Amino acid sequence: MAKNKITTQSQDFSQWYLDVIKEADLAEYSKVKGCMIIKPYGYRIWELIQREMDDRIKAAGVQNCYFPLFIPESFINREKEHVKGFAPECAIVTHGGGKKLAENLYVRPTSETIMYDTFSEWGQSYRDLPLLINQWANIVRWEMRTRPFLRTTEFLWQEGHTAHATLEEADIEAARALKMYNDFDKNFLALPVLTGKKSRKETFAGALYTLATEALAKDGKAIQAGTSHNLGQGFAKSFNIQYQDEKGELQYVWQTSWGVSTRLIGTIIVVHGDDHGLVLPPKVAPYQIVIIPIYKTDQEKDKVLEFVENMKDSFDKNLRVHVDNRENLSPGFKFNEWEVKGAPIRIEVGPKDLEKDQVVLFRRDTLEKMSIESGNMKKEVDKLLSEIQENIYKKALEFQKENTFSVNDYNEFKNLISEKSGFYKAYFCCDAKVEEKIQDETKATIRVILDEDVKGKRCFYCGGEATQEVVFAKAY
Amino acid sequence: MAKNKITTQSQDFSQWYLDVIKEADLAEYSKVKGCMIIKPYGYRIWELIQREMDDRIKAAGVQNCYFPLFIPESFINREKEHVKGFAPECAIVTHGGGKKLAENLYVRPTSETIMYDTFSEWGQSYRDLPLLINQWANIVRWEMRTRPFLRTTEFLWQEGHTAHATLEEADIEAARALKMYNDFDKNFLALPVLTGKKSRKETFAGALYTLATEALAKDGKAIQAGTSHNLGQGFAKSFNIQYQDEKGELQYVWQTSWGVSTRLIGTIIVVHGDDHGLVLPPKVAPYQIVIIPIYKTDQEKDKVLEFVENMKDSFDKNLRVHVDNRENLSPGFKFNEWEVKGAPIRIEVGPKDLEKDQVVLFRRDTLEKMSIESGNMKKEVDKLLSEIQENIYKKALEFQKENTFSVNDYNEFKNLISEKSGFYKAYFCCDAKVEEKIQDETKATIRVILDEDVKGKRCFYCGGEATQEVVFAKAY
Repeated sequence: MAKNKITTQSQDFSQWYLDVIKEADLAEYSKVKGCMIIKPYGYRIWELIQREMDDRIKAAGVQNCYFPLFIPESFINREKEHVKGFAPECAIVTHGGGKKLAENLYVRPTSETIMYDTFSEWGQSYRDLPLLINQWANIVRWEMRTRPFLRTTEFLWQEGHTAHATLEEADIEAARALKMYNDFDKNFLALPVLTGKKSRKETFAGALYTLATEALAKDGKAIQAGTSHNLGQGFAKSFNIQYQDEKGELQYVWQTSWGVSTRLIGTIIVVHGDDHGLVLPPKVAPYQIVIIPIYKTDQEKDKVLEFVENMKDSFDKNLRVHVDNRENLSPGFKFNEWEVKGAPIRIEVGPKDLEKDQVVLFRRDTLEKMSIESGNMKKEVDKLLSEIQENIYKKALEFQKENTFSVNDYNEFKNLISEKSGFYKAYFCCDAKVEEKIQDETKATIRVILDEDVKGKRCFYCGGEATQEVVFAKAY
Repeated sequence: MAKNKITTQSQDFSQWYLDVIKEADLAEYSKVKGCMIIKPYGYRIWELIQREMDDRIKAAGVQNCYFPLFIPESFINREKEHVKGFAPECAIVTHGGGKKLAENLYVRPTSETIMYDTFSEWGQSYRDLPLLINQWANIVRWEMRTRPFLRTTEFLWQEGHTAHATLEEADIEAARALKMYNDFDKNFLALPVLTGKKSRKETFAGALYTLATEALAKDGKAIQAGTSHNLGQGFAKSFNIQYQDEKGELQYVWQTSWGVSTRLIGTIIVVHGDDHGLVLPPKVAPYQIVIIPIYKTDQEKDKVLEFVENMKDSFDKNLRVHVDNRENLSPGFKFNEWEVKGAPIRIEVGPKDLEKDQVVLFRRDTLEKMSIESGNMKKEVDKLLSEIQENIYKKALEFQKENTFSVNDYNEFKNLISEKSGFYKAYFCCDAKVEEKIQDETKATIRVILDEDVKGKRCFYCGGEATQEVVFAKAY
């Protein structure tokens, strides 16, 4: 049996993460600094995420479209906050077709400016609102420190962009997108997440407010999995996006934007993975069932292969089933490989199993082996896949609960978080400067503001009257 | 009824093309030179193309992945022919993260070089071959003269890249991809195409040979719809992609690459469109059936809307059915809009139709109106959609036949093609210099070399012994 080459999580979590990505064949770095190559197994996970998310986006009445990769420098400069946030991390095209360009083009770090210049020419009347648009695209942000999937110079994402007649409608849309992400994280990726507003300091450049979903990695660090911004009228005013209301008067629209990216793959790894490698919730597993035929003689081979092919065909057509019939590799090598790759169910079929009319089934999430009668296979497998999906969620939720702490005093918090990472709930009233000081001293930032009553509570930092309950954590 | 704003094809085909794109709301130019915005209706067509093509690509055992957008300048320079072909039309990133880059990055004009540098590290043994990879991506080529969908600075495509142990296997793969495109064009997009090898002059930069599918636009111009290249061992040697054969000896791989792009949408427009606008084959229509409710009073409205919603629900779930219940727009306006947008079937339902238990059905391809009993609707519609798909193909094939000519003499050809564009079949034996001279004099190029016997035939240009039968045409 092939030796597992993965560093344990307790030894070195960062190295464990890189080992899993390599051994599960998800991605590798290219020779372009900070850009990764998403390999077929990793890309298949992205395709499953895309398909499901796209269905949910379309179900909300949002239509897909495609805007240019390049943004004229002058567009980026039009929204003051936005340019401050993004210009320093852009890749810039200065030459095209062998000539120096009259105006530099920025490779999109996000598409607000290129889209909104056009939005100003669409939808002239209240009847054209809301405008609900989404695009699947590649994005470039010049990152200093990169980590595959979690932070890369180029990444893939979807970005929803909407325009509404009123602030209230934009509020509702921003909340809808957050709920869509929360449901998706929970029910598709088996990820428990905290949701809430970001602090001013962590708000998207140019937005009124930012909502986010935050997952907790197994090393106790927070990971922002999705964001939804109410952009207010800032962009509308910079890009002159107006509509005629029912009275015939010109009004600026209210906007939102929201997105998730290939970062979700990194999130799955750090939330569900273990020392054996990747653990995939069945809904997002490229293969939900991997069947490994075991034989020694040619005669055994014929019998076993015929049996496993029939078994494969007997499964529901919607299931993703793979027979690993590669030659020259031992069953033990294959067991290990599919364990590292996180296949939810592995089925082992050898000559003895055929005789006994049973197969051996291995559950990746619990590492349990069990014998199943061939006749019961279909039913058992359906039941098991639901059970695995639920169990993976439950385990992650338990971990999150066990690693969520309440703190009432800043010094206590400083000591605790230096010993143990996790979500730290605290009452708070201070400003961005204090937030920054806390970050300097503890490396922790406010991940979300919880929607909780804070009447009569005191700020954990200064003892003043609390204005909000927040969650601090170190973050990816 | 809204007046049709489309220039007729006979008046000005180029303007007709731009009018259709505008009026059918498919795309518009952005303020970035040569880059278009693909609007929801146009993007939906691309999604339908993607989904079907992706299924066919996967069925051939090819796996999707994703490689970086940026290519280091040194990679582009490694393949001599390739750099000559592509470097002049690249967009170049010189700055990132606020600093001048040590090495310029080219925005991918195609991904051979960035992929093959990595291929050299994958697949060390004959057992790892063939390597079958595909990616869906955006591509940038700095074009001087652009036309939406047909030639844009940025476009979307899929690019397949494969590596094989032998030349023969690469031949088979290049032919397989061509056949896949041919079948897809014919059976999904209702496009009749010529297929064959390209002349040396028209061969992809760095390839052994290029195969292509060529459609014929209604103005008699050829349009390259897809290409498949046998790359030989040129890239393998430049990028050192080797494998160990069964004897343990190092060999260079043989490679292919193949692609289709958003150009297919332009091809659909120019092959099937008419003076009323877009004509969409049902398989690629965002809505195959558009139902338009007609009413005057509120009471009529309630009845009609209930009826059409029931009708919509009664159709097969796989059909794409849309009820156009927009207020403030007359039925006539909607009839016109969906005609321009090429919806294959329009169903009109008014109060009188309800009484008579029938509906009026309009076929976009033949512009025929017919009455259908409500009870027969489902059956009729299924039959009709197949009929429309077939008829659109048949019409295009007839047009292609009527505009395909055989010429035996160059002067005759020069006269004919100056009067009437089309496919011109000719026997030929001359070299690229003559090809270029012919292009200068007639604007026509060799679109494909036909796979025909030329024994005893004389070259139409010089009278020498013909080496091949070729098709000349002016091209997009």
